[in-house]
Amino acid sequence: MQITQWNIISEGLDQQRRYSRDALFTIGNGYFGIRGFFEEDDQGIGALGGLYMAGIFGKGEVDVVSGPSRELCNIPQVLRLRIILDGEKVALDHIQDFSQELNLQNGVYTRKYVWTSKTSARFALVFERFARMDQVQEIWQRLTVVALDSSATLKVQSLMDSNVTNLNWASKEPWPIQPGRDHIASRTLRDNQMQIQLDDADDTVLCIAQKVKAYSGYEAVTSSPYTGDRECGSVFETTLAVNAPFVLEKAVHVYAPRMDARQEQAQAAFLDAATTYDEAFEKHASCWLKRWNTADIQLLAPERDQGALRYNLFELMAVSPQHTERVSIGARGLSGEMYEGCVFWDNEIFQLPFFYWSDPKSAHRMLRFRYHTLPAAIERAKELWFKGALYPWQVSEKGKEQTIVEGGAYYAIHITADIAFAIRQYVELSQDADFLQNGAFEILVQTARFWVSRCDADPADGKYHIRSVRGPNEYDVYVDDSAYTNYLAAYNLRSVAWAWGILKQRDAEQSQRLADSLGLISKEAELMQEIANNLVIPATEDGMLILEDNRYRERRPLDLTKIDTGGKRLIDSVMPYEALPLYQITKQADVVLLMNLFPHNFTDQQKKTAYEYYEPRTAHDSSLSYSPHGLMAARLGLMTEAYDYFEKSVLLDVEDRQMNTVSGIHYANFGGTWQIVFYGFMGISVNGDTLCISPRLPKQWQGFSTKFYFRGAVFQIQYRNGELSTELICGDGKYMVMLEDEKFILSNEKPKAIVKKSL
Amino acid sequence: MQITQWNIISEGLDQQRRYSRDALFTIGNGYFGIRGFFEEDDQGIGALGGLYMAGIFGKGEVDVVSGPSRELCNIPQVLRLRIILDGEKVALDHIQDFSQELNLQNGVYTRKYVWTSKTSARFALVFERFARMDQVQEIWQRLTVVALDSSATLKVQSLMDSNVTNLNWASKEPWPIQPGRDHIASRTLRDNQMQIQLDDADDTVLCIAQKVKAYSGYEAVTSSPYTGDRECGSVFETTLAVNAPFVLEKAVHVYAPRMDARQEQAQAAFLDAATTYDEAFEKHASCWLKRWNTADIQLLAPERDQGALRYNLFELMAVSPQHTERVSIGARGLSGEMYEGCVFWDNEIFQLPFFYWSDPKSAHRMLRFRYHTLPAAIERAKELWFKGALYPWQVSEKGKEQTIVEGGAYYAIHITADIAFAIRQYVELSQDADFLQNGAFEILVQTARFWVSRCDADPADGKYHIRSVRGPNEYDVYVDDSAYTNYLAAYNLRSVAWAWGILKQRDAEQSQRLADSLGLISKEAELMQEIANNLVIPATEDGMLILEDNRYRERRPLDLTKIDTGGKRLIDSVMPYEALPLYQITKQADVVLLMNLFPHNFTDQQKKTAYEYYEPRTAHDSSLSYSPHGLMAARLGLMTEAYDYFEKSVLLDVEDRQMNTVSGIHYANFGGTWQIVFYGFMGISVNGDTLCISPRLPKQWQGFSTKFYFRGAVFQIQYRNGELSTELICGDGKYMVMLEDEKFILSNEKPKAIVKKSL
Repeated sequence: MQITQWNIISEGLDQQRRYSRDALFTIGNGYFGIRGFFEEDDQGIGALGGLYMAGIFGKGEVDVVSGPSRELCNIPQVLRLRIILDGEKVALDHIQDFSQELNLQNGVYTRKYVWTSKTSARFALVFERFARMDQVQEIWQRLTVVALDSSATLKVQSLMDSNVTNLNWASKEPWPIQPGRDHIASRTLRDNQMQIQLDDADDTVLCIAQKVKAYSGYEAVTSSPYTGDRECGSVFETTLAVNAPFVLEKAVHVYAPRMDARQEQAQAAFLDAATTYDEAFEKHASCWLKRWNTADIQLLAPERDQGALRYNLFELMAVSPQHTERVSIGARGLSGEMYEGCVFWDNEIFQLPFFYWSDPKSAHRMLRFRYHTLPAAIERAKELWFKGALYPWQVSEKGKEQTIVEGGAYYAIHITADIAFAIRQYVELSQDADFLQNGAFEILVQTARFWVSRCDADPADGKYHIRSVRGPNEYDVYVDDSAYTNYLAAYNLRSVAWAWGILKQRDAEQSQRLADSLGLISKEAELMQEIANNLVIPATEDGMLILEDNRYRERRPLDLTKIDTGGKRLIDSVMPYEALPLYQITKQADVVLLMNLFPHNFTDQQKKTAYEYYEPRTAHDSSLSYSPHGLMAARLGLMTEAYDYFEKSVLLDVEDRQMNTVSGIHYANFGGTWQIVFYGFMGISVNGDTLCISPRLPKQWQGFSTKFYFRGAVFQIQYRNGELSTELICGDGKYMVMLEDEKFILSNEKPKAIVKKSL
Repeated sequence: MQITQWNIISEGLDQQRRYSRDALFTIGNGYFGIRGFFEEDDQGIGALGGLYMAGIFGKGEVDVVSGPSRELCNIPQVLRLRIILDGEKVALDHIQDFSQELNLQNGVYTRKYVWTSKTSARFALVFERFARMDQVQEIWQRLTVVALDSSATLKVQSLMDSNVTNLNWASKEPWPIQPGRDHIASRTLRDNQMQIQLDDADDTVLCIAQKVKAYSGYEAVTSSPYTGDRECGSVFETTLAVNAPFVLEKAVHVYAPRMDARQEQAQAAFLDAATTYDEAFEKHASCWLKRWNTADIQLLAPERDQGALRYNLFELMAVSPQHTERVSIGARGLSGEMYEGCVFWDNEIFQLPFFYWSDPKSAHRMLRFRYHTLPAAIERAKELWFKGALYPWQVSEKGKEQTIVEGGAYYAIHITADIAFAIRQYVELSQDADFLQNGAFEILVQTARFWVSRCDADPADGKYHIRSVRGPNEYDVYVDDSAYTNYLAAYNLRSVAWAWGILKQRDAEQSQRLADSLGLISKEAELMQEIANNLVIPATEDGMLILEDNRYRERRPLDLTKIDTGGKRLIDSVMPYEALPLYQITKQADVVLLMNLFPHNFTDQQKKTAYEYYEPRTAHDSSLSYSPHGLMAARLGLMTEAYDYFEKSVLLDVEDRQMNTVSGIHYANFGGTWQIVFYGFMGISVNGDTLCISPRLPKQWQGFSTKFYFRGAVFQIQYRNGELSTELICGDGKYMVMLEDEKFILSNEKPKAIVKKSL
């Protein structure tokens, strides 16, 4: 893998890693996710493509808690190409100089190779595509064919191919992938239009249309319409002269009337418009440039670190929905079928922070998704005999529990507090009090009510307890008094009063109406406070070590350094599943993660104690583990460890380090990578009203520069040659900034920028 | 359902309950289990039959802990009959006077009806069959056809039909049943012989042969051999005169060379022999009579109670293996596919007690099964990083864990102590010290070693704890310090010293060699004792209430009397699965069961307290719950409650009270029914060396009479008109007997019998 400042390049065709690279080279625009599949390969698993749309689910394979399951649906392979040169079909044998390249700046995925025919004639082929960012219902594709040795006849079928299934039965490993369920219940084809109906409970329909043009040596090539078996499109036939490129440009428009009926007109307009590939690309690319403006982190660092970091951020931006508040980012986004395409807690805890700082509107949209699914969370709490709102562990766009019955994952109720935490984080960073009035307060109250109903008062110790929960360490079915869960639940309970304070100040009357509509009275609010103050947080007697749960220390120690897992996960190698609850084994960051979320609430000594205690007990059997450890290590000044974790995190998918990239790339880890860099190496945090910046770079790095949002303003910080500077790019207020140990106030009037020699 | 002294009779054909009746009318001989299917129905699910053989498993559907799963295999329907009268096939429409009858005394299942042809001619048909008890590889069948109105031509195909699958996909409810897996990998057919190869890992082969004769009006009818599509056999054609019965007699012999190669000669001899149906029946029936001798309990009670009780005992005897030590009784025996035909703890705790007292040799054979699977249990402990032997929760004849990965049932490690408990019970009752020397001691030592490695010493309280286990109350994934588990584990640990005492006295040298071979030294034995004495048994401070686990009382109370489950199980109706661990809900007898096992170790006050505390908290969501409650109620003198539970238990399958009889009848419940009667109503127990008899009859009963084994002797006790008598039928020793509150010694020399006016 070659990593440059703005490109991820893979040279040579490695059949073994082909489908893993398909996932790696996923592009998208939050509406579509398009794996890096080969358009011209219509044989076997490769022919299935890998094209997903946000919120488009089919009938699932497994029974789940709430009833019939759903799984992200692989839609038709709408970029199908069949290329016939001198009567011979271009296939993947007899190719040379194969390369795949992802341009991170503009999201164009390019594939090239030279193909040799049976008569030894060579042809250069280039495949390009992008998911248009300014018109998200569109995918654009360009094919260029050049005869290198002699002229030839060329026939190109440019199709939409509905002869696909999902890529996997259920979402389970192990690999390689196997054809999965056929979700297409019925189809109507007519030349360049296709309508399919899915097998989901809503009978979702997708309306697909394409327009294709082609030129040979800059002369237009006419096409004939084509409707075949489950596929349709246009067919071009021409003669290629040597070195006179044949160029085919195609655009596809897809919409689901169930999601957005207005798109019917949009599709008609799309078909009418005379937009060229270059015109569409220009608009698309400028959209991407704008997004990079407050997202990019320029490093003075090895090119690999720079390019790989940008890859992580690129994929987050490529999957975040711009067009709707009705979906959010799944664990594997729109890049694969693992976890049925569903959304989990990592959306709030791992992915959203990047958006708070780089694109608050996206963060807002994704939190609004939780507001739209609040009724489902209220319903879920009721089903389980609790009050308020319990957000399900795993949800599709409908917000209903999609966890399988047997897994026990539904004990991981901390997700409810994670969502409340994210809401408060977002509001504190954006100062978006409107959101508090319009949805967020309702979520905070309903989730707090859940915790009131979920905890138990114990007369023996006068404390409140939360029993039988699964914390971030998923290696217990459940524990009592998970420190992470209880701490976040207490924060959730306290956030009602916090939000109420803001709302009252904003508009006393309006906020009282809101409270009344929720039936919130002061007695209930007081109980929330009382419980928050008395929820047990297990710790050693001196308070120095926060305990993962109330019996973690009673378990048997296990020296992970003496265990050889042969490169596999602990749980997939030597560790018997049934013995897990007897040992001090942490699957992934738990207490360490808690302390990352509240960096100013724990002393450095507490953090150090926790890191040193849990790190050797942590199996890192999840992609959610490296980055929190990297962040904590950076905050503790353990720069060698921090950089080591950064490498593991930033290259996780680029180098397929967990050997499961094939099933989709790891969005939580992308967000975690950003957190190591932004919170850890750049040392950015917020303490009360103050923006704190205190960089600690690994020795491999010399500096950085970045822009970000804070309280509606845009800041830029730069660090190089031991000099740290901060500038207010735009923003109307006064902003307290702490550069390392010195406090400043920035505003439009007073100094807009500070430069400081770093420690 | 009509229940007489010795018959279960169902009149009329109820299509809705047909497959549930199939299970109810299961007959068997421990080698075969044969559901009450209709031989002449070759349409749909009915055509699949339902015929199982002990230890014959096919490839299963679900992944299990130990790898690929196995499931009890439905073997070919070897009793297939096609009956054509005047060219019209006898089918299940147009029938009258339909009845099914099971003779409990001799295990013959009879089905009768009158069939009317399209030309309105009536024919009486009788189908009889039995699984021969003195030659367990044989099944016998008899068909009688009588023309009632006019003569007719008759054609009968008497076949073995391999066109079957299992009756269900996996073993899951809900019903109705659906065709399951086809386990037959290949077949060779030749007239009256069939060889099939199964799809299991051993490529098990079944060799099946039949011989058939027929008479019409006492004249032999000749047959032609027949080999069809997946079926073969003999075809008879004749003319029926009015009222001149056509009688067809058939015998089938089946063996699996993998299980018993010597049966090849036996099958040849079977085919040569001229045995008639009546001759075979006579030998078979006398075998049954002998078994009833020490098993039957004659009641002075309503006929329903008598017949239903006998049904429970009949099915236990009909499933217990007489021919081998290599299998034991599965939860649904050989009557259905639920639980994949596997053996669980209920074998030892619910079913074996009946055999200790009625047929100690059967009990011995089934405990030897646990000895043969000891290596698998040792392997299992090792896999899970423990020492000694951990008996898997669910096993086929191979003794390997068959629990599904997700279920968590493997936390129910009490099964290991249950097996040790059963061994000690059996040895104490039978005085079979030979078994201790030959296998049982090894089991006791290895299981005790498991507990040593499984428990944790806590320096804080100086006690030992067993963490993360599932007790008999399966409504927790796991708890810490389950009273049931810890008490039985302690007993298991103590039983090593107990057994050692007996062995040393029996033969000091031989026993030392055994200990040496096991590497057992006194230091280890002392540690076992030390742990046994310090294992925590959770209880209230005054010791009055034994607590199910260490936090049962901290959970939320739930008033079951206020919950309407609409006749369903709590868990299948209103109770959310995820909330279970937060509530005081007991799925089935737990502490109550513990006290039943050690009736002399708890005070009456402790038992009463436990019964009154747990009974209202018990959902009875298992067929293992009524009978322990019935027994405890009887011991506490709560005769109304006891009789109520007895009714629920004795009629569970007869009246299909849990609506799941279709998936197989409930053998643990059969054993539990016997325990209510034997231990509860008849008041039999053993205290040290003394046989205690202290009847407490429900008011519906006036008396009883029964014979049973005790320490190698046979006793008879009778109770009627308030007079209790005990007689030593045969036995060489001196036996201490306590009749209610008075002690006697019975022997051959001194009084052999005592009669006592009861309290």
